[in-house]
Amino acid sequence: MKGNERNIKLLVEYDGTDWHGWQIQPNAPTIQGELEAAILRVTGEPRRVTGSSRTDAGVHAAGQVCNFYTTSRIPTERIPYALNANLPPSIVVLQAEEVAPEFHARYDAVGKRYIYEIINRPLPSALRRRYSYHVARPLDLAAMHRAAAMLQGEHDFAAFQAAGSSVQNTVRNLSHLSVREVQPGRLLICVEGNGFLYNMVRILVGTLVWVGSGRLGPEAMPQILRSRDRSQAGPTAPPQGLCLEKVFYDRTYLDTGKTLR
Amino acid sequence: MKGNERNIKLLVEYDGTDWHGWQIQPNAPTIQGELEAAILRVTGEPRRVTGSSRTDAGVHAAGQVCNFYTTSRIPTERIPYALNANLPPSIVVLQAEEVAPEFHARYDAVGKRYIYEIINRPLPSALRRRYSYHVARPLDLAAMHRAAAMLQGEHDFAAFQAAGSSVQNTVRNLSHLSVREVQPGRLLICVEGNGFLYNMVRILVGTLVWVGSGRLGPEAMPQILRSRDRSQAGPTAPPQGLCLEKVFYDRTYLDTGKTLR
Repeated sequence: MKGNERNIKLLVEYDGTDWHGWQIQPNAPTIQGELEAAILRVTGEPRRVTGSSRTDAGVHAAGQVCNFYTTSRIPTERIPYALNANLPPSIVVLQAEEVAPEFHARYDAVGKRYIYEIINRPLPSALRRRYSYHVARPLDLAAMHRAAAMLQGEHDFAAFQAAGSSVQNTVRNLSHLSVREVQPGRLLICVEGNGFLYNMVRILVGTLVWVGSGRLGPEAMPQILRSRDRSQAGPTAPPQGLCLEKVFYDRTYLDTGKTLR
Repeated sequence: MKGNERNIKLLVEYDGTDWHGWQIQPNAPTIQGELEAAILRVTGEPRRVTGSSRTDAGVHAAGQVCNFYTTSRIPTERIPYALNANLPPSIVVLQAEEVAPEFHARYDAVGKRYIYEIINRPLPSALRRRYSYHVARPLDLAAMHRAAAMLQGEHDFAAFQAAGSSVQNTVRNLSHLSVREVQPGRLLICVEGNGFLYNMVRILVGTLVWVGSGRLGPEAMPQILRSRDRSQAGPTAPPQGLCLEKVFYDRTYLDTGKTLR
């Protein structure tokens, strides 16, 4: 970074339905690609945007965080309005703040919170279909609570990462994993941790759904963890139920704010 | 109705975003049109569907009610599955029940509940944009509460119907009108009444938004009602914030069930 550059941290909400995920791709519309195009239009500078997390196609965010460098003199508090004027309505910049030059949205994240929504009733929902996974068979919440309690904490989550991943250290700390029925037939699975393997949240959800439908017992969780074998865990739940709610940083960075649900 | 016909009452949820409203039209896709096409495919019979309410283009429903007659012998409890297999995912039949031959979804409705969602913060919401109205200026909730209290009850709502309407009797009973901030920046306006004039809910909301932003005082409500003049009330709020939540019938008909939000 040069001396006249500012490091700008953005808080971004998006509806992932119509995007090929976060990460920029040559021939497909992505959220990172749209943000970089908007920054180019507003500042005249082609800049790379660094996201805290590369959300998959169809995954949403209420509080994604990213950062970019600029020499533009646009006032920081005007940046959300200027970028939003150049973004489609399914991507909204909620906040901008100038942060220390060394701030890195991905490496400095100390934790993330995801929420996964399940519609659990015989018939699907027209109004939540873009933001939830429909499970028609009744789920046993008590069994899911027991399984969630066994998955919480620090474990080797190798069995819960997409097959073929090459990450060396697969130990992560799941500080929170809960299942709540917030309305009749509407479940929210809240997952918080210090880091996530590829597809880990969706595999955790797919495994909890297998527990809820009786295909796995809660007591199978410790042996799945020990196996370190992807084929022992449940399926990868579909992307549209997943939402990146919040990214946590060291306290020297401001809170990422309130999100809507 | 012939002797071998059944009268089937349906509970229907839909996302109105991509539809030209409820009512069938020759050259535009509508919810009634889709339901009638699905009934024709399932039963082989071209039948008219009677809705409780002709929701406008862009308006949603969590609990629309309609009915139709059929000689088909398909078991009533299979009807939702059979129709849904022939409907797009933005229209879902949640329940079917056989009702008395004389049941009429529109004439027999004794009340309706609508919910209107406002996102009240400087920046819009990507995730709620299809289901809410974005009001950037801060709204004074206390003033809105006072205005809502004055509009509740039985009044002549002529000032709150779309200009050019020809309804004779414009007296309606608003049994409930409340404004709640359910999350920071997310307001729900709940409206319940025994009947609604054309655009009445959206004009009530537009008027309450004018009160919240200081353009009208709450004390202006009685004089707007007395004026019977559409131009005295606020603007018609946009359709996408509106959702038909529930239709009430005489107790001889079953409850229309739970809705998701």
